[in-house]
Amino acid sequence: MSETADALPADAAGALRQVLGEDRLLLDPADRWTYGYDNSRGQSLPAAVTMPQDADEVASIVEVCRRFRLPLTTRGRGTGTAGAAVPSEGGIVLSTERMDRIVKIDPANRLAVVQPGVTNTALQTAAGAHGFFWPPDPTSADYCSVGGNLACNAAGPRALKYGTARENTLGLEAVTGAGKRIRTGTSTTKGVVGLDLTRLIVGSEGMLAVITEATVKLTPLPERIATVRAAFTDIGAAARAVSRIMAQPVVPRALEFMDSSAVALVRERTPGGLPAGTGSMLMIEADGLADHLPGSLAALAAAVGNDGLLEWRATTDPSEAKALWAARKALSPALRSIAPVKVNEDVVVPVSEIPALAAALEALADRHRVRIVSFGHAGNGNIHVNLLGTPADRPRLEACLEDVFREVLALKGTLSGEHGIGTEKRRFVSLEIGAEELALMRAVKSVFDPDGILNPGKGLPEPA
Amino acid sequence: MSETADALPADAAGALRQVLGEDRLLLDPADRWTYGYDNSRGQSLPAAVTMPQDADEVASIVEVCRRFRLPLTTRGRGTGTAGAAVPSEGGIVLSTERMDRIVKIDPANRLAVVQPGVTNTALQTAAGAHGFFWPPDPTSADYCSVGGNLACNAAGPRALKYGTARENTLGLEAVTGAGKRIRTGTSTTKGVVGLDLTRLIVGSEGMLAVITEATVKLTPLPERIATVRAAFTDIGAAARAVSRIMAQPVVPRALEFMDSSAVALVRERTPGGLPAGTGSMLMIEADGLADHLPGSLAALAAAVGNDGLLEWRATTDPSEAKALWAARKALSPALRSIAPVKVNEDVVVPVSEIPALAAALEALADRHRVRIVSFGHAGNGNIHVNLLGTPADRPRLEACLEDVFREVLALKGTLSGEHGIGTEKRRFVSLEIGAEELALMRAVKSVFDPDGILNPGKGLPEPA
Repeated sequence: MSETADALPADAAGALRQVLGEDRLLLDPADRWTYGYDNSRGQSLPAAVTMPQDADEVASIVEVCRRFRLPLTTRGRGTGTAGAAVPSEGGIVLSTERMDRIVKIDPANRLAVVQPGVTNTALQTAAGAHGFFWPPDPTSADYCSVGGNLACNAAGPRALKYGTARENTLGLEAVTGAGKRIRTGTSTTKGVVGLDLTRLIVGSEGMLAVITEATVKLTPLPERIATVRAAFTDIGAAARAVSRIMAQPVVPRALEFMDSSAVALVRERTPGGLPAGTGSMLMIEADGLADHLPGSLAALAAAVGNDGLLEWRATTDPSEAKALWAARKALSPALRSIAPVKVNEDVVVPVSEIPALAAALEALADRHRVRIVSFGHAGNGNIHVNLLGTPADRPRLEACLEDVFREVLALKGTLSGEHGIGTEKRRFVSLEIGAEELALMRAVKSVFDPDGILNPGKGLPEPA
Repeated sequence: MSETADALPADAAGALRQVLGEDRLLLDPADRWTYGYDNSRGQSLPAAVTMPQDADEVASIVEVCRRFRLPLTTRGRGTGTAGAAVPSEGGIVLSTERMDRIVKIDPANRLAVVQPGVTNTALQTAAGAHGFFWPPDPTSADYCSVGGNLACNAAGPRALKYGTARENTLGLEAVTGAGKRIRTGTSTTKGVVGLDLTRLIVGSEGMLAVITEATVKLTPLPERIATVRAAFTDIGAAARAVSRIMAQPVVPRALEFMDSSAVALVRERTPGGLPAGTGSMLMIEADGLADHLPGSLAALAAAVGNDGLLEWRATTDPSEAKALWAARKALSPALRSIAPVKVNEDVVVPVSEIPALAAALEALADRHRVRIVSFGHAGNGNIHVNLLGTPADRPRLEACLEDVFREVLALKGTLSGEHGIGTEKRRFVSLEIGAEELALMRAVKSVFDPDGILNPGKGLPEPA
């Protein structure tokens, strides 16, 4: 917890007040504290919280930050787990909560135009009324903002079939760190004019520009969903099934897995659900036309085969589906209840390396005397590795975490599939990305943000 | 045709000879001319042609170009239509034809690693042996290189369902204009560490870096394809059908259209194929499991309905499918035979604006006394507008073309969906992209290519 740069120069306060009035500028410490954290462990007191209502006001706030060299941290709803929305160097928080207008749902062109503060669920509801959805589906959908989803390139189970935020964004309006209002991308699903600034800004964690409007690509809702719970003897069998599923043309809309620790934890809490001897579990969803689903389920069952399979339960009935998901949904509350400290990472390895990662995690759990429970988006190799312990275990958890990252990179994986870097993983980035590439990224950041005011201390590590 | 910078300094020739030997350095003008053009109208004599075999040699060539301030134009197979591979400012052509190795097909992880000179078809064949394909499917697939596909963000009909090159690339190895060897992206389908340099380089037309290796995402081959030829009274009816098709969950793998001029041209040449009164035609393909296709066809037919529909012919038999495609395939040869000069653009408009674009094109054809024939990828709104005439008509064609671009932009479209900018559309880019955005793009280019040696005179217009 830091209070760096807590003091706002009086002139800066005056300039911000001129832009925002009294109501949308928070200067009282009690108010400011509530904008000083996200869903990571980080917390830091900003000097002021601003709540612009439109792009002009955003540009004015950026101008004030430039003039007074104040750090500017853009904040959606603070649901991120990596600390990207924590004002770790103080300065100004720009909350997008008052920019929550759905500008347009355009079914004929399969797109929506939204302000950044619209929640993911609000967008889904508005699109759903026209028979569409927006693919990114983070667990925090009810609370998180589309702007935050774009900043972090958020995803979720559906990314397997429908892509992440990056693949589902057509264009952006934004204000750069130099205070320039820009418009990137197109209103069309194809376009190759100029350099692709849209996908550069998506996933840049507020380091390049403040997004003021997004044109996102919508996808037609499926007619029906089929749900499968498949129990396996061990993680190797489950991972082989994942590879075979991914090699045939029925791409699941979800392909989630639980390792043996996760299965054991669920069995402790909700006995009777899974067959004896279950060492790993897959949840599989297929979607499409109702009359496609029997064929899809048959293809998935054929791909899975009998290799280590203990049980295959499939349904297209929504309430039965809910019952099948119960084991998986029981996991997160169980994790919270068994350990006061949970370090939840979202590493990615090539799908074929999931068993190797599982073996490595078992060895690390032993070596560091840490309980590790893993689950996640198996079709992408995106594994949520949870290191569990008490506050006193922190040093051991941290040491173990660093070894987890090294194993992931040795398996040609990546440190984060959807949570991002923020402050939490920043010190590990140079294990994955080389010095030349980091130098390029820093230089690109400087192009957008020459004064270094946008989200300093995040994402990219300092030069060595 | 220009011969700028035709002379290579003797020291530069010596340095290149040291890297490449005699065999892979072409200095004879007759040899050099054959590397001076692509499928645009441009042609220009390079001072030397280099044929590196690996990334080390590419880095050495870039070093020589930096030292002697020589323009460096990377060339795949020269099938691009926008002039991006033409060495318009002379200097060195770097042909990737000797870097044509498929490094790895990795079915378990649904990826392939290839050198840039591998042809699209060679990649498809190698992936096909494992039951996969790479989605980009330009017409020139048999000849064009994967590196060229990436440089132009190439696509084709399948992009509608499976995305363009940008959505189907996981990572790159490249040499920047500063001579730095870099590695971008991941070997996984998710990853949010650092800025997304991969998708920035894809579509950058050789202006940022020379791609030396690509990790591309593979997709499982469908079990079967269903093909539909649907004839409509007019383009409005066809376009409304396209919007309805795109609003339901069966995403076609192709949704191609022909306007009334294209239909008329085909009917002149191959009478008897299409019903009387056909004013527009759609070719629709659905793919997936064999037993999905009846349901898919029924859903597509329901979406199309009877609104202006004259004929609906569907088949899952490959030879019947070929017969249905005959009318569409007859179009390109017909276009070549009726007019010695054909300006073929690939503009994009929002799908709902296709009828407005068609009306605008009719008016422009009248006003400029130019025959215009349009067809293309209707589901993306990506329309190939062909302006036909004789060499004497060039000025009229050019004037008409500029008006076409203005209409497209007025309809919130974009100048190019898949061909790119190169030299041909460069002077129009500032109609679409604002000054601030162009300044950012030029600055990003300078980060990668501080000396401005990579493909000068392409893509981004000079500052005003």
